[in-house]
Amino acid sequence: MGGVTSLNDLPLRDNLRGLTPYGAPQLHVPVALNVNENTHGIPEEVAQDIVAALAVAVTTVNRYPDREFTELRVALSRYLGHGLTRENIWAANGSNEVLQQVLQAFGGPGRSVLGFAPTYSMYPLLASGTGTRWIAGGRDAEFELSPATAVEWVDRVAPDLVFLCSPNNPTGTPLSLETIAAVYSATDGIVVVDEAYAEFGAPEEPGALTLLPGRERLLVSRTMSKAFAFAGARVGYLAADPAVTDALRLVRLPYHLSALTQAAAVAALAHTPAMLAMVDDIRSQRDRLVSELARLGYSPRRSASNFVLFGGVEDPRATFEALLADGVLVRDVGIPGHLRVSAGTEAETTSFLDALEALGRP
Amino acid sequence: MGGVTSLNDLPLRDNLRGLTPYGAPQLHVPVALNVNENTHGIPEEVAQDIVAALAVAVTTVNRYPDREFTELRVALSRYLGHGLTRENIWAANGSNEVLQQVLQAFGGPGRSVLGFAPTYSMYPLLASGTGTRWIAGGRDAEFELSPATAVEWVDRVAPDLVFLCSPNNPTGTPLSLETIAAVYSATDGIVVVDEAYAEFGAPEEPGALTLLPGRERLLVSRTMSKAFAFAGARVGYLAADPAVTDALRLVRLPYHLSALTQAAAVAALAHTPAMLAMVDDIRSQRDRLVSELARLGYSPRRSASNFVLFGGVEDPRATFEALLADGVLVRDVGIPGHLRVSAGTEAETTSFLDALEALGRP
Repeated sequence: MGGVTSLNDLPLRDNLRGLTPYGAPQLHVPVALNVNENTHGIPEEVAQDIVAALAVAVTTVNRYPDREFTELRVALSRYLGHGLTRENIWAANGSNEVLQQVLQAFGGPGRSVLGFAPTYSMYPLLASGTGTRWIAGGRDAEFELSPATAVEWVDRVAPDLVFLCSPNNPTGTPLSLETIAAVYSATDGIVVVDEAYAEFGAPEEPGALTLLPGRERLLVSRTMSKAFAFAGARVGYLAADPAVTDALRLVRLPYHLSALTQAAAVAALAHTPAMLAMVDDIRSQRDRLVSELARLGYSPRRSASNFVLFGGVEDPRATFEALLADGVLVRDVGIPGHLRVSAGTEAETTSFLDALEALGRP
Repeated sequence: MGGVTSLNDLPLRDNLRGLTPYGAPQLHVPVALNVNENTHGIPEEVAQDIVAALAVAVTTVNRYPDREFTELRVALSRYLGHGLTRENIWAANGSNEVLQQVLQAFGGPGRSVLGFAPTYSMYPLLASGTGTRWIAGGRDAEFELSPATAVEWVDRVAPDLVFLCSPNNPTGTPLSLETIAAVYSATDGIVVVDEAYAEFGAPEEPGALTLLPGRERLLVSRTMSKAFAFAGARVGYLAADPAVTDALRLVRLPYHLSALTQAAAVAALAHTPAMLAMVDDIRSQRDRLVSELARLGYSPRRSASNFVLFGGVEDPRATFEALLADGVLVRDVGIPGHLRVSAGTEAETTSFLDALEALGRP
């Protein structure tokens, strides 16, 4: 193979020409706080049960997996509660794939999806990949999103879908149920609430699942990547009216969830209390980041997530590089004057704060 | 959740209305020979190594997987040989996802893909899911595909992509390298040779990999589902010019291959001789099916695969049901007068043949 052929020599789709692939750098550093992973590993006793479940799954891995992933849907519905059953649950290889399937079923050529920038950077890529027009709406001051602002955008652009990231990534901003309900009432389209980081919110705050009854166009997506420390296993899911899961069956690839994925996820969900024990610790490290960043003279944004966006950074690129030289990887999310950092273990969070403080005042 | 909402109450895309999901029945029967699985399980010592690799992967499953799945690409390139390196290799969750990504990159709205019916039933569904127009070309007698017939279709419809299934599913028909080379020369588009069942062909027959040098628009897709008995793990892959893998990076979802998938596949590939030891046995059961089906008065088609399509079935539905009542599940692939059966273990193949013989002459 010569290897001298370039992308331009191939009959690539026109809308892909000149693009570069999505990619947070995958660098090997002592303290990686760049992609909002749960930096606490899986508890040893849970890991043993997951491996035992995988060992059983391997004995029949020559057969296609359960195309309906019934056991996993039952386990996810029990975890979510709210009277949900397996009929309400869908899952795929990461919430990216869940959202891609939603766009395949309800978006696509001639249709549009509205989001509120700055928001999760994959939304426009998923829209582009499915031929759906991406519309970047705006936010209020401090990255908040009021019912009035959200509804004004919905009225103005009449989207076929609305993606609401709650709490919002990369800003951490929580989203009120009032905004979600107002958006739902303002549109005849599909409303997706992306609750990837839901478990890190205040425990007493009700989430979007409470809004599902009577709202058949409302989809609440979740992931096991964050609170369940399962980013490597790729398990995203959503809860919605059973008719929505019927729609997704029309676009999913058959057998899209492997027998290993299903087995590992079911085993992890059986240990929910142990898996979620890390969440409290992460929440307190996040709160510590907010107060310490303020003390250091930065402007941390309020966060209901496992990360903090902080402003007041004079030269984000220089600060990013200086931290990296100290073995601490954070994320430049492209918002002027800001950087984003994930809440790590207590030691990792300390490493970040010490390295930042050593750089001097912002 | 009321559950009274129907698909028609949702803003589903128009082209999905009235469709039903892909679905071979997932019935629990003693002898399942319907979806061309490798009915031999994974050898015990290989299974142990796979589980050991999974146990290591679980220790870091809180982190995102290697987005470039480098170790897996190296292992796959070594397995394929032919001077291929990891730069030539791409992989995804089953070859369906590989083909979906190929259509996202090179097909889509305003473009078309040509296949030669009857062929793999997922091709038109993958085309529809990506907005690519599916064109069903025809075949010669006995489901063969000569260079002249294939090129005539390419000339007539000028497709953007051509899918060549080799050997063809559901007919089992081998495809000559002459046809592949002629199709490649006749088009400026992408040519995919789907070699899902390649390992079951005659060992002395060269495959499409030998055609790769100098043909930067030729893609050879494979799967671990069949010869490697890995249907449950969902590992499809392809070999092509490195520029092709660059194109696929633009459309793949980041981290699409889980850490568990990568670990399991690498471990299995390290045991290639043991994993492929079953292939000889399956090949001999396939040859037995062909000769016995002929003896029983049916018309088995020639097959380079792990299944046999046989004609001369007066009432395929009735024969399917009668076999099922005897605990043997085969596949009605919608070709009049035909049924398809996978080559199982010797005992399973005997069960099928005995049950069929007991039904009397076709």
